[in-house]
Amino acid sequence: MDGSVWEGLLAKAAQVQVPEHLKSRMDRGEKLRVKFGMDPTAPDLHLGHLVVLDVLRDLQEAGHTIVIIVGDHTALIGDPSGRSQTRPVLTPQVVEANARTYFDQIYKVLDPARTEVHGNSEWLSSMDAAGVLQLMGKATLQQVLQREDFAERLRTGSPIGAHEILYPFNQAYDSVAVRADLEVGGSDQLFNLLFGREIQRGYSQEPQDIAVFPLLEGRDGSIKMSKSAGNHIGIAEAPAEIYGKIMSIPDHLTERYLRLIGRLPSSEVDRLLTLGPRDAKAALALRMVARLHGEDEAVAAEEDFRRRFRAREAPQEMEDHRPAQPDDLTGTMVEAGLASSRGEARRLSQQGGVRINGEKVTEASFSSFENSDVLQVGKRRFVRIRLSE
Amino acid sequence: MDGSVWEGLLAKAAQVQVPEHLKSRMDRGEKLRVKFGMDPTAPDLHLGHLVVLDVLRDLQEAGHTIVIIVGDHTALIGDPSGRSQTRPVLTPQVVEANARTYFDQIYKVLDPARTEVHGNSEWLSSMDAAGVLQLMGKATLQQVLQREDFAERLRTGSPIGAHEILYPFNQAYDSVAVRADLEVGGSDQLFNLLFGREIQRGYSQEPQDIAVFPLLEGRDGSIKMSKSAGNHIGIAEAPAEIYGKIMSIPDHLTERYLRLIGRLPSSEVDRLLTLGPRDAKAALALRMVARLHGEDEAVAAEEDFRRRFRAREAPQEMEDHRPAQPDDLTGTMVEAGLASSRGEARRLSQQGGVRINGEKVTEASFSSFENSDVLQVGKRRFVRIRLSE
Repeated sequence: MDGSVWEGLLAKAAQVQVPEHLKSRMDRGEKLRVKFGMDPTAPDLHLGHLVVLDVLRDLQEAGHTIVIIVGDHTALIGDPSGRSQTRPVLTPQVVEANARTYFDQIYKVLDPARTEVHGNSEWLSSMDAAGVLQLMGKATLQQVLQREDFAERLRTGSPIGAHEILYPFNQAYDSVAVRADLEVGGSDQLFNLLFGREIQRGYSQEPQDIAVFPLLEGRDGSIKMSKSAGNHIGIAEAPAEIYGKIMSIPDHLTERYLRLIGRLPSSEVDRLLTLGPRDAKAALALRMVARLHGEDEAVAAEEDFRRRFRAREAPQEMEDHRPAQPDDLTGTMVEAGLASSRGEARRLSQQGGVRINGEKVTEASFSSFENSDVLQVGKRRFVRIRLSE
Repeated sequence: MDGSVWEGLLAKAAQVQVPEHLKSRMDRGEKLRVKFGMDPTAPDLHLGHLVVLDVLRDLQEAGHTIVIIVGDHTALIGDPSGRSQTRPVLTPQVVEANARTYFDQIYKVLDPARTEVHGNSEWLSSMDAAGVLQLMGKATLQQVLQREDFAERLRTGSPIGAHEILYPFNQAYDSVAVRADLEVGGSDQLFNLLFGREIQRGYSQEPQDIAVFPLLEGRDGSIKMSKSAGNHIGIAEAPAEIYGKIMSIPDHLTERYLRLIGRLPSSEVDRLLTLGPRDAKAALALRMVARLHGEDEAVAAEEDFRRRFRAREAPQEMEDHRPAQPDDLTGTMVEAGLASSRGEARRLSQQGGVRINGEKVTEASFSSFENSDVLQVGKRRFVRIRLSE
């Protein structure tokens, strides 16, 4: 990253609080404790996570300590109401396995030697009822209800388990327990990070500075990359997968991906963007595979992609088609005008004349379309599948 | 009490839930565990508490077990926000002293041998953070926010400490801990008692039945007797005090007091009410002193009252006067037309010609008027002091 850590952080951050305070600490050469939270129910990282991880790496290189908090306390308890799908009970074995998966990925970016790891059960499981009362006494209910998902559910009358009020307190108390100087996260974590400041104040600690970062768009162009939305590109995926998926993102996202996760000097990004949309995207794909799997794998993935996909001359512009039923291959071919009947469609695929993203497909091997899939019949006929608005 | 315990309870209760269930358990001869909560910050009982205590005594006599829960857990922690005047931190010594005061009074009505006593710190102080999360998971925030004081504060934007959400859960969990079959309380406790049912269900216990009882009006006629409002008649007060204070209640409350706390057959109440307002009230006063101090003290208090007060022929009807400054004796006398000047008022009181409720008063011994005080000058001139609307 060009320039100081501070400038790099500021260039990417969606919001920093309190910037002048944070900058002066960095300028004075203070070594900060930088908190970052990990959700042990979702150990699979994707490219969106690199936005923050790259900043953490820069901070490490500048001598700061990254403190990763594994939210194991809640994961081990689970959601006592049983209502929440997002908070399943995990066994200690699963928490440990997930943490292993997570750290295998995160250490592709971070330096383990300068990373401190804690499970928040270290301090939360020994807290007693009086401690919980003390903790909750540090804020008003009205402050907690400002959190967007609570406010929304109150407005719409959808139930909020009373215990859910505890979750922001628990994660905020983590900042107290590790004496965090700075906490970073996605911009969807803004409330939680600010709440950490509030609770630290309640325990007479200097409130942490905070920095939140933009959420990277998914490869379908939708607002947020996430595994559950199926629009993610996983950090642990194979080189060819990463390369091919990046090549499928909408052109207008190439610059955004380059700037947020390319980890390139901005002058280099500017240069790549002059190459035109397809080549800029290919440079991004090459760069990302190189970051995650090394240069050799990146070059191999590029060659493989060119051979398999470009050779078939998929046009840069093709028509979109929205299938009536995304799990119906032959029906979709008929709808899109790629076959005159289901019978013909079936024959074409049996003869090896139908491809999705360059891979041959038959009714037997097909399960369902994903957004942005390129459906091809023969050498010249293509449509791009669109599933969402 | 006439008839069965069930009929007595039903005659006084403001609400019973679930009545048919409770009645059938009683009819089957089941011995119930009847929960009643005590606030260790307010150990002074007054006549209003007898409404429920008499029901508890009847239940004891029918063989049920009264389980009194001293809310010492919260009292020992106090209010961590320091915002609440109503939840001071108490030392263990103060909690113990208050409990002693409380039980000295309560055992004027209840049989100690059939009363089980617990401090809720027995189960709450050892609860851990996971236990608190489990407990709070048994209800939604929306359910808790139905509690009137929360709803009101949300509406008016006055802060609710997040920890305050825990208090109803704690008291509801007390029902789980003691496996309560029935909980009784004042009608202002309706939410808490219903919430006990909810939380017992959450822990797979059969929900307690509940019965709430009317709040006895204060001796100034206002809606609720309470020490803080200064309109109470204490259970521990001296016979002459109790007698005199009951004689000062508004006539229209005589029947209500007789029926709610007289502990008399309803036919006897009917008979007393035929005597006319003054004699019915005198019978109530005699009855209440007898209940709390015995027959001999009651007769003595009545004789003393008659000698001191009736002998001076305080008229049954007299004018009301609202003092401009209730702590100004001579000014009030001038305002009320009982003296032509402060100088005359001062002379009259120095000569022993001024009485409040039959007691001689001078400027030196006077501190302030209370509502319903009878201010008398000489043998024939009276006004009744009114302080509130």
